[in-house]
Amino acid sequence: MASGHTTAASVRGPRFAGAGRRGALLLALLLAAAAALLPVAEPSCPRDNSVVKDINKMHQSNYGIGGFSHITVAGALAHGMKEVEVWLQTISAGQRTPIHRHSCEEVFVVLKGRGTLLLGSTSLPYPGTPQEIPVFQNSTFTVPINYPHQVWNSDEHEDLQVLVIISRPPVKIFLYEDWSMPHTAAKLKFPFVWDEDCLDAPKDEL
Amino acid sequence: MASGHTTAASVRGPRFAGAGRRGALLLALLLAAAAALLPVAEPSCPRDNSVVKDINKMHQSNYGIGGFSHITVAGALAHGMKEVEVWLQTISAGQRTPIHRHSCEEVFVVLKGRGTLLLGSTSLPYPGTPQEIPVFQNSTFTVPINYPHQVWNSDEHEDLQVLVIISRPPVKIFLYEDWSMPHTAAKLKFPFVWDEDCLDAPKDEL
Repeated sequence: MASGHTTAASVRGPRFAGAGRRGALLLALLLAAAAALLPVAEPSCPRDNSVVKDINKMHQSNYGIGGFSHITVAGALAHGMKEVEVWLQTISAGQRTPIHRHSCEEVFVVLKGRGTLLLGSTSLPYPGTPQEIPVFQNSTFTVPINYPHQVWNSDEHEDLQVLVIISRPPVKIFLYEDWSMPHTAAKLKFPFVWDEDCLDAPKDEL
Repeated sequence: MASGHTTAASVRGPRFAGAGRRGALLLALLLAAAAALLPVAEPSCPRDNSVVKDINKMHQSNYGIGGFSHITVAGALAHGMKEVEVWLQTISAGQRTPIHRHSCEEVFVVLKGRGTLLLGSTSLPYPGTPQEIPVFQNSTFTVPINYPHQVWNSDEHEDLQVLVIISRPPVKIFLYEDWSMPHTAAKLKFPFVWDEDCLDAPKDEL
């Protein structure tokens, strides 16, 4: 039985096995082709250890905010920054950031468009009627520490694109519902990170 | 004599006085015209307390370095920054920054042009043959803390324009003459400030 003769079962065995290997390969190829064609979820925390990065290819998201786009150019979570973060943000015509304050330094460089910086008071118990200061392409502004502020794309058509630099990440941010909300009632969010999916551990609830 | 009659002197008097007022006005206008035409020394330490600043109108200098231009967009001395500085620098085709290292965080955003980041070693006793990493418009890179580095506009024609963000100003910089100079021989310069004319007191000599 062993000399040149194989049973149907033993023949089928290898045949099935052979067909199995070819089938598995075909299946893998089909799956790879499908994966290439189907939309794939972007990584929520892109890790890119290359020294030089193409900003055009960096992870971009609106983080659930309409008319907004954010790229963490250099970040504490994604890139291990400890002392500064750099963000590239685009705000659509008419859109505003939340009214907020923080005790880090913040520098804006306006790359495109125009808008208005709204700056509240720290001497009143609430922000009060804000100063409205025009900002424009190739302008820069620094938000004084702890001043309630809002950046508004007050243009009717064009996007406002800003490079934002903050110190001491992550930001400890206090959010206001409006300009009359007392400073003491502003809602604390800490750590305030855009790419919070990069957090290794679940955040503490405040 | 008083009734409708004026002496030549009294006439001349008012005439001279009148001519003097007109003359003074003319002189002022001439001086203003001359001031507008003549080159005027730029203020060495521009103090501008406005919240929003036009970068195109900010103080720009090559600080004695050929093929180089620097604007302190947000600075410790000029603008009271304590945690970050933002610089806008333009490097002509073929030019290089000095080889140097520092222990602050540094982020570059390439606004225009292309070039090469040269990155030496921290594990050898000297920087050694550097890695050469291409940088390009809309790229970003972070210089790892204490790595000897140099930014070279390796393009033959176009300017390289970068926005530079550093933490913990002023920079404590160590300068190398070449890539074979021992780390321990690199020359310390502290504080390293571009706008050193803004220093209130003379610097300590090291």
